Amino acid sequence: MNLHPMKLVTIICEAVLEDRIVEVLHECGAHGHTAFDVRGSGRQGERTADLVECGNVQIEVIAKPAVAENLLARLRRDFFNDYAMVAYESDVQVMRPDKF
Amino acid sequence: MNLHPMKLVTIICEAVLEDRIVEVLHECGAHGHTAFDVRGSGRQGERTADLVECGNVQIEVIAKPAVAENLLARLRRDFFNDYAMVAYESDVQVMRPDKF
Amino acid sequence: MNLHPMKLVTIICEAVLEDRIVEVLHECGAHGHTAFDVRGSGRQGERTADLVECGNVQIEVIAKPAVAENLLARLRRDFFNDYAMVAYESDVQVMRPDKF
Repeated sequence: MNLHPMKLVTIICEAVLEDRIVEVLHECGAHGHTAFDVRGSGRQGERTADLVECGNVQIEVIAKPAVAENLLARLRRDFFNDYAMVAYESDVQVMRPDKF
Repeated sequence: MNLHPMKLVTIICEAVLEDRIVEVLHECGAHGHTAFDVRGSGRQGERTADLVECGNVQIEVIAKPAVAENLLARLRRDFFNDYAMVAYESDVQVMRPDKF
Repeated sequence: MNLHPMKLVTIICEAVLEDRIVEVLHECGAHGHTAFDVRGSGRQGERTADLVECGNVQIEVIAKPAVAENLLARLRRDFFNDYAMVAYESDVQVMRPDKF
């Protein structure tokens, strides 16, 4: 079994941002994504007790490590100041590395 | 790129438990979550061949390792005997560690 | 806290394949799964610029490492030539290892 190390980048953001994020991830060199609607809570700004209940979207992207780093840097630069976005990465092993 | 190690705790349970689990995760020190509806199958109790088809909810929580451990211990104590709940954790790297 | 290492296998495929994949994962020795609908884009075949927008399903399976390997090998053999399927695995730590 040949498995290839990649990064899974997960982004949780307001649903209205989905199309822009998908554009950005392709610009950063990612070749695919999945997205689905989620509900949830989160800490916003400095008020630690202020939990926000809202409808969000979760976007998942498998990419080469360098592409994942590009994407996270771009999200920080273009979105983090203005939006209650969460972004994290984790390690995965993929089949068919040519797809990513 | 500054990334910070955290735990992702994933909980799969009956939809009717969602509000109670969200309360518990905040009590344990987590500051946010996402939730979404899933369908699925699972092994219930001791009857290994008994696969249950039902509507469930998947709840995902990013938290500091100590908070994740608290949460899993609390789930075990308060829910595992009575509910067909699945809970697992994995390692993630987050941006914006102040949000968790 | 006793946590036990397992594999999380994630499969993204056309919704029409869901029932067949669920049958296959049980045949391979997995005892449960979750599934939910996703939208997304992906690279198809050799045409790297050809991003396909479609409705898909995401299937997640927790299993022992040997079962995960069986499942990925079976997916490769039976589906990869004919379908735009993505499959990857990652490491998770579960409670209640008897459920998997």
